[in-house]
Amino acid sequence: MSSYKAPVRDMQFVLNEVMQAESLLTSMPDTEEVNAELINAILEEGARVAETLLAPINRSGDEEGCQFEAGEVRTPKGFREAYATFAEGGWIGLSGDVEYGGQGMPKVLAVCFEEMIMAANSSFALYAVLTAGASLAVARHATDELKQAYLPKLYSGEWAATMCLTEPHAGTDLGIIKSRAEPQDDGSYLLTGTKIFITGGEHDLTDNIIHMVLAKLPDAPAGPRGISLFLVPKYLPDSDGKPGERNALSCGSIEHKMGIKGSATCVMNFDGARAWLVGEVNKGLACMFTMMNYERLTIGLQGLGLGDASYQTAAAYARERLQGRSPDGPVEADKPADSLLVHPDVRRMLLTMRANTEAARCLSAYVAVQLDTAHFHTDPEARERADKLVALLTPIAKTAFTDKGFEVCVLGQQVLGGHGYVREWGQEQHVRDARIAQIYEGANGIQALDLMGRKVVRDQQGMLDVLVAEIREYLAESHDDALADYLLTLERSLDTLLETTDRVKSEASEQPAAVGAASYPYLELMTLVLYCYMWTRMVEVARREIAAGNPDADFYQSKLYTGEFFLRRLMPEYRALAEEIQAGSESLMAMPPELF
Amino acid sequence: MSSYKAPVRDMQFVLNEVMQAESLLTSMPDTEEVNAELINAILEEGARVAETLLAPINRSGDEEGCQFEAGEVRTPKGFREAYATFAEGGWIGLSGDVEYGGQGMPKVLAVCFEEMIMAANSSFALYAVLTAGASLAVARHATDELKQAYLPKLYSGEWAATMCLTEPHAGTDLGIIKSRAEPQDDGSYLLTGTKIFITGGEHDLTDNIIHMVLAKLPDAPAGPRGISLFLVPKYLPDSDGKPGERNALSCGSIEHKMGIKGSATCVMNFDGARAWLVGEVNKGLACMFTMMNYERLTIGLQGLGLGDASYQTAAAYARERLQGRSPDGPVEADKPADSLLVHPDVRRMLLTMRANTEAARCLSAYVAVQLDTAHFHTDPEARERADKLVALLTPIAKTAFTDKGFEVCVLGQQVLGGHGYVREWGQEQHVRDARIAQIYEGANGIQALDLMGRKVVRDQQGMLDVLVAEIREYLAESHDDALADYLLTLERSLDTLLETTDRVKSEASEQPAAVGAASYPYLELMTLVLYCYMWTRMVEVARREIAAGNPDADFYQSKLYTGEFFLRRLMPEYRALAEEIQAGSESLMAMPPELF
Repeated sequence: MSSYKAPVRDMQFVLNEVMQAESLLTSMPDTEEVNAELINAILEEGARVAETLLAPINRSGDEEGCQFEAGEVRTPKGFREAYATFAEGGWIGLSGDVEYGGQGMPKVLAVCFEEMIMAANSSFALYAVLTAGASLAVARHATDELKQAYLPKLYSGEWAATMCLTEPHAGTDLGIIKSRAEPQDDGSYLLTGTKIFITGGEHDLTDNIIHMVLAKLPDAPAGPRGISLFLVPKYLPDSDGKPGERNALSCGSIEHKMGIKGSATCVMNFDGARAWLVGEVNKGLACMFTMMNYERLTIGLQGLGLGDASYQTAAAYARERLQGRSPDGPVEADKPADSLLVHPDVRRMLLTMRANTEAARCLSAYVAVQLDTAHFHTDPEARERADKLVALLTPIAKTAFTDKGFEVCVLGQQVLGGHGYVREWGQEQHVRDARIAQIYEGANGIQALDLMGRKVVRDQQGMLDVLVAEIREYLAESHDDALADYLLTLERSLDTLLETTDRVKSEASEQPAAVGAASYPYLELMTLVLYCYMWTRMVEVARREIAAGNPDADFYQSKLYTGEFFLRRLMPEYRALAEEIQAGSESLMAMPPELF
Repeated sequence: MSSYKAPVRDMQFVLNEVMQAESLLTSMPDTEEVNAELINAILEEGARVAETLLAPINRSGDEEGCQFEAGEVRTPKGFREAYATFAEGGWIGLSGDVEYGGQGMPKVLAVCFEEMIMAANSSFALYAVLTAGASLAVARHATDELKQAYLPKLYSGEWAATMCLTEPHAGTDLGIIKSRAEPQDDGSYLLTGTKIFITGGEHDLTDNIIHMVLAKLPDAPAGPRGISLFLVPKYLPDSDGKPGERNALSCGSIEHKMGIKGSATCVMNFDGARAWLVGEVNKGLACMFTMMNYERLTIGLQGLGLGDASYQTAAAYARERLQGRSPDGPVEADKPADSLLVHPDVRRMLLTMRANTEAARCLSAYVAVQLDTAHFHTDPEARERADKLVALLTPIAKTAFTDKGFEVCVLGQQVLGGHGYVREWGQEQHVRDARIAQIYEGANGIQALDLMGRKVVRDQQGMLDVLVAEIREYLAESHDDALADYLLTLERSLDTLLETTDRVKSEASEQPAAVGAASYPYLELMTLVLYCYMWTRMVEVARREIAAGNPDADFYQSKLYTGEFFLRRLMPEYRALAEEIQAGSESLMAMPPELF
């Protein structure tokens, strides 16, 4: 019963109007042709793909799931055909390197497209985004020979790719992986080990699958500084570059999961598989992070997209479902009951969904602008500044979008009552599919630790300073009285964030557990500051357009209503988070392990 | 991999030590034999049933689900045999009327038992608790003839029962139901209509199924004041009281749901089915509320129990899983990594789970004490006071236990990372099974509206005053300096609650939407006050026992650690909730329906 509509108008709003992406892109040589017309054309074509190619096989994919038999994986009905069409459209190489057949499009477009495909069919989208992410690591770190052999096939979608990190005993703690790579005389390696939770490790969508695998050389140092990255194809390319000899690797089984059932999650066994080093020996984690940082934002978009899909169904249901009467008395007296939208608490749920989704979309555009600046800008200072913002914001985008996205999906299920719990309307699938996004690509607790520890407390580059300076400058330049409440709340919450930061830094110098004790609420606190910044900027633009008589007044008016709700009802939490952080680590660390 | 252990020691603690249930029960004539020995015997036998009879068929029940064919429902393998054993144990009539074969045990024992069976196997437990709830409505409102014909069979578990409220177009809004009951000359009725989402509407566990059905007489007034309650058996009892002629009702299909897959959720068609009135004509909603209030607390226990089951698995996993190193440096240097328990953020998750679960268990015992007082006490004033507390606390227990229970299950899944998302460990099933508890038996938004509207703003009986007077008295009598922080927080949060209450009452007199706009955060605010009250009382007892040299010091010490965590890290939210309520209804109600 759900029919996803890609939020093209909203994307145009955050890209072109709030973030002014067009003027940035057309000002940089490598992206100068990306004007509003091209942006809109790609958004509209992407929407068509998400709505008509992927959404129709989302529920059937969930119901059928992937099937494993004799080492092979059969994806759900329709996935293979849809993947071929999808690949032909050039979508997998959308932001790929033009030198190897990629489209060279900026990240601001990629984030919109990825949000759409994640919303329409997360299981399907995963095969594509992992391939795009692996391509990025290959393009950045592999030899020219490997790039020539693999990138064109990956961008074209003929071949797919995976990332292989986790082992049965080693998830977050990659320093203790056991997979080993033995160097061979010809410069290749033979890789042996077992990897688990490998998304798309085996499937029937493409002629070849290229695994990006972390392993250790025989003489590697212990811990994370002894990890190298390898490219391991399922089939070794023959002299024509076509899939040739089968490599010594196989899929041992697939997982039975809560959701994303159309995505094959595989146990992969490497039994002396032929492998090629990517990047330098023992620098594998850094190379893999090229891919992981890409995927972290993308997985954030999964939470965002699924939340939006859930909102669309919940809002449509609330408009049409007649139940109860308005607190002010009947609104539609000729009908047996009023619509759900007369009930304040139903509006609370819908507006909470919307306020979080729209703030996240705006923040994703903001992060993408930084990624494009870091990649394409001609001014090294601009690139450096953008790089710092990307490093700071990536763990926030991953965690905030997926935590709030899951919460949004749960609310979207609640709006439908019992109808949200049964399969028919698709709302329960959104909840199940969104749940994984908080777990994989670095569990959200790890993201929070990355933010608080590496990006704030131990940071020597002043990442947070860049963000703070930008917001302070924005505050100093904003004088619209109608925005006064937004600006005041933004300033106060920013002050609270900085006081909190100083306190944690000072505690951490004496008590190492202080970082981990503060990390989660700290990330949530910074999220609220960022969402407040995004909403202030969105409301500013909306007010300006309404004042200028823009005929799309309803659209801008809805931003004002939603922003007001965010400011009044969701922002108050920031002080509670600061207070929670202030409590320190003592009450967390006191209980002896045996009493848990 | 999960193996549920019923928390018998914790239950003894809240019942006997914190709530002093034994001294209350032995002081009332109808329960005077319920001493500590009997309490402990029932808890231990109940634990055995939950752990050895129900838990082993929980996961298999989820995987197999219920099957529907030609109007009949087959429950998962093992359910039928387990149900027979369960019924033989007398558990369904545990708190039933002794005159008709019930055991007459107090609610304080029933809540413990229901928590256990919900934790071990919610799908299975639902068949039993619906039967117990229906029995309560029959015992309270039906004629002696109906009681004699049905109660003994229901208490013995030979027959099961359901509650039939929802129709395709009418869930929360029962005033618009279409089911009709035509009076017959013999005093019975012929009932026609379609009911949906009927838990246990059809199954193979018992020889007969008794439906408690809401319907309207032909001349009934419109709206909720025209609803009557009917008893409609699947098979009409013959002259020996055995299942005889098949009644004109049938199961049309079962739902495919996110969870509780071993529980059959049925579409029930009544086609002129023979029915008997329960209670007075047009007073059906009030009679059904006898059952609904019972079930609301029980469904709260589902959230509580599943959260505890999830905690047990998460804590065991965290103790054993080695991953990363303590922030202070290696704790177990001879192993490849330290246990997850060295990580502050893992502790945050586990302690959040535990602080909420234990507060809920204590509050469930508190509510049960009020229910027993209301039912068994010889002093009418004591009964009246207890009745008011029950009315006030039922929507809170239902909502708080299920919202926090779901949150706890999600955290318990998060602790296991990817292993929490796959079927193997059982954590993802807990999330799916817990999710329904926020929806059925009156969605949580409706509970919040019941609390804020009927029990607070429009209440004429002073329900909240009773609670406030009790807490004020407790505060006045507590002088333990070591409890000072708890007492201060309890007092301040109570003051905040009362200021908030006054503000909403005053706004509601001018703006009817103010009630619904405040209701959800208001319920959450009152939950925090109540949980703080419970934790203060638990910590008080634990401190006393430690000071007295109780040999079970570890147990009491764990209460102090968990209480401290609750106070420092979870209580700060209360001010944010008050601020959210203070924002009023404007930002919720402003957006026109067509902009959603």
